Amino acid sequence: MEKINFVKMHGLGNDFILIDCLKNDLPKPQEFAIHYCNRRFGIGADQLLLLYPSQIADFKMKIFNADGSEVEMCGNGIRCFAKYIWDRGLSNKDVLEVETLAGIIKPKKVGELVQVDMGKPEFHPNKIPVDVEGDSAFDLMLEVSGWHARINCVSMGNPHAVIFLDEEPKNFAVTKYGPLIENHPIFPKRTNVEFAYVKNSSEIVMRVWERGAGETLACGTGACATAVAAMVKEFTNKKVTVHLLGGDLLIEWAADGHVYMTGPAQEVFEGVVKVPQIG
Amino acid sequence: MEKINFVKMHGLGNDFILIDCLKNDLPKPQEFAIHYCNRRFGIGADQLLLLYPSQIADFKMKIFNADGSEVEMCGNGIRCFAKYIWDRGLSNKDVLEVETLAGIIKPKKVGELVQVDMGKPEFHPNKIPVDVEGDSAFDLMLEVSGWHARINCVSMGNPHAVIFLDEEPKNFAVTKYGPLIENHPIFPKRTNVEFAYVKNSSEIVMRVWERGAGETLACGTGACATAVAAMVKEFTNKKVTVHLLGGDLLIEWAADGHVYMTGPAQEVFEGVVKVPQIG
Repeated sequence: MEKINFVKMHGLGNDFILIDCLKNDLPKPQEFAIHYCNRRFGIGADQLLLLYPSQIADFKMKIFNADGSEVEMCGNGIRCFAKYIWDRGLSNKDVLEVETLAGIIKPKKVGELVQVDMGKPEFHPNKIPVDVEGDSAFDLMLEVSGWHARINCVSMGNPHAVIFLDEEPKNFAVTKYGPLIENHPIFPKRTNVEFAYVKNSSEIVMRVWERGAGETLACGTGACATAVAAMVKEFTNKKVTVHLLGGDLLIEWAADGHVYMTGPAQEVFEGVVKVPQIG
Repeated sequence: MEKINFVKMHGLGNDFILIDCLKNDLPKPQEFAIHYCNRRFGIGADQLLLLYPSQIADFKMKIFNADGSEVEMCGNGIRCFAKYIWDRGLSNKDVLEVETLAGIIKPKKVGELVQVDMGKPEFHPNKIPVDVEGDSAFDLMLEVSGWHARINCVSMGNPHAVIFLDEEPKNFAVTKYGPLIENHPIFPKRTNVEFAYVKNSSEIVMRVWERGAGETLACGTGACATAVAAMVKEFTNKKVTVHLLGGDLLIEWAADGHVYMTGPAQEVFEGVVKVPQIG
């Protein structure tokens, strides 16, 4: 192995090293991810995306975290993955079938953007999970460090606690209250936390505290959970633009019960590692 | 401008985008630095290094911070700059003359490493500056948040407060005491702070709190200041290896009164920005 070509991409600031393994496999992907996701000693990225042929779909996507662990799916990642395939002319289909560890995902081309089916939201406390009685967990009052937060719990495959604020969250103490809610004993598997402001019936402004990661620029499942909570409460229409720190996502809760997320994917540069520093 | 080629390098984890402007100038370097030093939306680096021809030296180096401001000199940057020149065969001289805003710097090839003359240390309190009487500012006792720190002040063109600890600084509260000492009123221009442990007469282990930047993986002038303080106190020989979080530097205080710093420079990858996102 003399050199490895890659493309650096991001979706709302969630950034990826994408390596095309259609012709040549990448040996030791875990080691590559650990070494090259490092932002100072490597290329720098949240995750490594690998593009493979598939036996059961158009393509197969493998995702590795910066710590070398493999991930099932990533909403921002699959948009970048699909954009790469279309930009390189590897497929002329407007809806791709992509094999992932979370099943077959079908990113759809919408102009310059990419739409992804995020599945159905789940409201039952046992399924989220959140330790309360009843069929849903909306308008729960939690006291954290003297603040009474009204939380609305939704699962998009992972737990979310959505809090609606009376003003934009620009100066809100996300890093103070985020971890207190994330680790509140009511959440047996902890939770992601969204601080949202409904600007009007088709726009939400939010900041997100991700479970285990802290505040991030964007969280696709968090945007979906927040939009769905706002729709249940009839704060908004069934199609809203969610403004996150990293950019915008369009979220639609369709008649089939599924949530569709549409957002950007951006290629930044092409690169080549000449002498891989992994053994 | 259709595309821009660059090389990504680092010296002890202090990382750089290097662009060769010998043939083609880079328009709007400030804007390029601001956009592309961003680690998620851009290429990601601490600084942008530009390689130009010089009228008075072999080459000229310009340095821009991630905020677009121009910098005089950077010890880790000039090692990378010299390594690039040698690796690309742009000069066959073992000692290069490089024009910078801080004067002509002469990086020297030492095997795979690069040696840089860091100039003479300055001990006079007025020159550091530190507000105390006398000809030097060693063994000053400062109380910060109940801790009595014994500091030794040295300037290497910028102010340093070196503190020798009784054990390795691995678990030391650098982020607690660093800013308290940095901003202590005794330092009119604030100070960098080094937390060092003398392992033996030729080895020092240290962590550094950089003025205005917080804890970093490595600081060339900080390693020099720490080595010089240890030599004045006769804790070590006149040639020591300083172990920093990002790697090792060899520091020698020579008979000519100058401090010579020898360390690594590493190329990580070559890249090309196809459609620059700056306007």
